[in-house]
Amino acid sequence: MKSSKTVKPLLYTSLSPKLLDIYDVSSSIVVIIDVLRATSTITTALFNGARSVIPVASVEECMRIGKQIEGITAGERDGQIAEGLTYGNSPFEYPRDFIAGKTLVLTTTNGTKLLHMALDKGAKEIITGSFPNLTSVCDYLVAQKQNVILGCAAWKDRVNFEDTLFAGAVISRIKQHFDINCDSSQIAETMYNDAKKDLYAFLKKKNASHYHRLTNFGLEKDIRYCLTPDIANVLCIYKEGYLVTQQPT
Amino acid sequence: MKSSKTVKPLLYTSLSPKLLDIYDVSSSIVVIIDVLRATSTITTALFNGARSVIPVASVEECMRIGKQIEGITAGERDGQIAEGLTYGNSPFEYPRDFIAGKTLVLTTTNGTKLLHMALDKGAKEIITGSFPNLTSVCDYLVAQKQNVILGCAAWKDRVNFEDTLFAGAVISRIKQHFDINCDSSQIAETMYNDAKKDLYAFLKKKNASHYHRLTNFGLEKDIRYCLTPDIANVLCIYKEGYLVTQQPT
Repeated sequence: MKSSKTVKPLLYTSLSPKLLDIYDVSSSIVVIIDVLRATSTITTALFNGARSVIPVASVEECMRIGKQIEGITAGERDGQIAEGLTYGNSPFEYPRDFIAGKTLVLTTTNGTKLLHMALDKGAKEIITGSFPNLTSVCDYLVAQKQNVILGCAAWKDRVNFEDTLFAGAVISRIKQHFDINCDSSQIAETMYNDAKKDLYAFLKKKNASHYHRLTNFGLEKDIRYCLTPDIANVLCIYKEGYLVTQQPT
Repeated sequence: MKSSKTVKPLLYTSLSPKLLDIYDVSSSIVVIIDVLRATSTITTALFNGARSVIPVASVEECMRIGKQIEGITAGERDGQIAEGLTYGNSPFEYPRDFIAGKTLVLTTTNGTKLLHMALDKGAKEIITGSFPNLTSVCDYLVAQKQNVILGCAAWKDRVNFEDTLFAGAVISRIKQHFDINCDSSQIAETMYNDAKKDLYAFLKKKNASHYHRLTNFGLEKDIRYCLTPDIANVLCIYKEGYLVTQQPT
């Protein structure tokens, strides 16, 4: 890094949940990134007035808590609605006239799993990130002046394009505020710069594995939405079991 | 992937040792990649006539085996010659008039560690890869028609640029012979295509962490050598404890 007289907070990118514990989670704000589709759906539900989202690790827990609090049970396994749950993991399932004032209990293959891993490792703070709330995430991270770990949820621990691209988008916007000595972050930013003109076309061209998985389910509309910056631009912050909105400070 | 009438072998890229066990090591040729500098040094020693290279996990083992077989003990920890060993991890330490006919016992921070990990997980076959033997690696992988895992040694489990770039170089050359459904591989190839005009300038520009670590030790010459394709172009294959050369079949 170029020398600087002021000490900047550190920023790292963890490209897979398996890499998270390389970094000092306990001194960092961990941004949970699951672009297709968990964190895009979370910000959409909160943007549309959901009271909160409860991220849970298992389908059983989702059903149990959903019953207990009369919440909306939702989630997917392998990209489709999980058996026993009422709703799925598409942002289009949560318009304002349905979700406003309600609590969503959500479990997904990768995103909610990573969130619980970050919790277990004692993350200083947890927020969720996705293109639909890109600006809120960036503004918050700059304002907090804390160390940051951009945590990609990946797909069953395999590094993926879309979460890496979101990490790159954040880095390209806020890098001057952080000390970044992390090749994963540089790789993410390089990928984003290659892709930013048309993220959708880039994923398609690069034959991204999850792009294919979802298009096989007819979910092109979901993918396009999940790659749209600031379409549901609220900050989603984890507080004592609940993801809730908070305006950037 | 595009449909194909012939079944092609699979190719995956593991960007860090921590990700290796996601893949089916036991059915694959694992290519150990530690560009700066272990696998570049291994191919150089073998190209220059070393009888074999014995990769060992610890400094103690290196000293013990070196004494036992009257071999050259060499290795580094954190980029510098490890205490108790005679030589380091620079390819320039192993010219023909020194190393021909001798056995090198080598231990390094990342590369030999990953090789032993692949062994422990029952890899079908292990070879080492680096820019100095790029063509030998590619020719061999195409000829074998087996599944492949490109295993990046990384730096203390952190993904790095240089190993990712080598994986990308291999993929860009041999991809038509493999079925590649792996975003890490696509990311590696994309990075390589961005960098290939001048790998050294790319690492410098991107502020690659290991580039900085080595240039702080005055090792620019090593870095330039380690990024030069086919400058010591022999296949390095692991056989019963020894890395030896073998002409591509």
